[in-house]
Amino acid sequence: MLPNKMLEENLNKKVSILLKDNTLLEGTLSGFDDYMNMVLADVEENGENTTRKVGTIVVRGSNVVRVVQK
Amino acid sequence: MLPNKMLEENLNKKVSILLKDNTLLEGTLSGFDDYMNMVLADVEENGENTTRKVGTIVVRGSNVVRVVQK
Amino acid sequence: MLPNKMLEENLNKKVSILLKDNTLLEGTLSGFDDYMNMVLADVEENGENTTRKVGTIVVRGSNVVRVVQK
Amino acid sequence: MLPNKMLEENLNKKVSILLKDNTLLEGTLSGFDDYMNMVLADVEENGENTTRKVGTIVVRGSNVVRVVQK
Amino acid sequence: MLPNKMLEENLNKKVSILLKDNTLLEGTLSGFDDYMNMVLADVEENGENTTRKVGTIVVRGSNVVRVVQK
Amino acid sequence: MLPNKMLEENLNKKVSILLKDNTLLEGTLSGFDDYMNMVLADVEENGENTTRKVGTIVVRGSNVVRVVQK
Amino acid sequence: MLPNKMLEENLNKKVSILLKDNTLLEGTLSGFDDYMNMVLADVEENGENTTRKVGTIVVRGSNVVRVVQK
Repeated sequence: MLPNKMLEENLNKKVSILLKDNTLLEGTLSGFDDYMNMVLADVEENGENTTRKVGTIVVRGSNVVRVVQK
Repeated sequence: MLPNKMLEENLNKKVSILLKDNTLLEGTLSGFDDYMNMVLADVEENGENTTRKVGTIVVRGSNVVRVVQK
Repeated sequence: MLPNKMLEENLNKKVSILLKDNTLLEGTLSGFDDYMNMVLADVEENGENTTRKVGTIVVRGSNVVRVVQK
Repeated sequence: MLPNKMLEENLNKKVSILLKDNTLLEGTLSGFDDYMNMVLADVEENGENTTRKVGTIVVRGSNVVRVVQK
Repeated sequence: MLPNKMLEENLNKKVSILLKDNTLLEGTLSGFDDYMNMVLADVEENGENTTRKVGTIVVRGSNVVRVVQK
Repeated sequence: MLPNKMLEENLNKKVSILLKDNTLLEGTLSGFDDYMNMVLADVEENGENTTRKVGTIVVRGSNVVRVVQK
Repeated sequence: MLPNKMLEENLNKKVSILLKDNTLLEGTLSGFDDYMNMVLADVEENGENTTRKVGTIVVRGSNVVRVVQK
């Protein structure tokens, strides 16, 4: 299964995205493109010492390390 | 919803942009292109220890981590 | 043997993937593309001090250092 | 307004450019290209501990973080 | 002699590959592509403090510093 | 004035080039290409603690921060 | 003189190549391509604390800082 196919299967589902700066974003995958730019809704952001709700986020693909199915 | 579609919905609205150097820019999204270069107006810049007003900014897309709807 | 041919031979087999952040992902290679974006199933993630099961992961190719046959 | 349109509006005007190495260049924007390579005239360069006049500079776009209207 | 020609001459021969994370991989060059992605067989991996046998490896080209003939 | 036009005006003139590793190269600009790879002649290299003459240098554009007219 | 023209003039001559990891490679330039991937023969490698002979090397262009004529 191709990576973009796998992401397609996760549309409108809960995922967690790890970024290069070690932030973990948990939310609903609303969209993505070929560069792995992503739209996440209802996001909870988990940094080293902090957790906060942040609504809808557009993530630039170059910062993405990996996407995990929840 | 594609990431650039999401950005389009935020045109002329308040967003906050996190940069790789951990600066947080809050302002009105005036424009963007496919590379996520962006134009922000009425910007307030929040660094580690400082906050200041900086008018209109062009941000090079390669520095963008994520864009949050306000 | 070309690198993508080698990856093809490992489809549905156990591999371990080393990422730039030194995380080691062990799982079944479910898919990949030309950019070395990968889908791994039944993943066990080994960080510096932690091990945990994480189901299915999409890894962005730019973070991959190397892939080892198990 | 597209980012390159915004830069065009700043041609022959004062701008300050923040680089990835934290240097701040203030000067007159004499030109730029699609990659955000830029020509700045009458530049004053502000490093961490130093300020100096440096005439005309060509900046490679990959080092640019953001451009601020003065 | 072009770099890819030189790599071609080393096919099925012993090489050592230095990676950006300072790991040294010694093994038989089984394949490579234009991006310098490589397949190495019978690999011995030499990290800062450790040596271990790791079978066959696919290395992503972006991590390669240089390849030495043995 | 486009950045490559500006560089053209500096052909066979003295420039100083700042690299990402903070080295400052002073010399005569003998040539450059679209990627900002450059040829410098009669170079004096100024590192953090050292200065030395180094004849003719080809600099890979990806290391260039900025070019200053002398 | 274009950078690749300059490299061409150095074919089969002694050069020293500085890499991003501060290693200095001295040897005979046997070949190169548009990406500045290079083949060096009869190489002497000078690291921070060590010097050693290493035969023929293929260097990935992305690691090259500059090439100096000897």
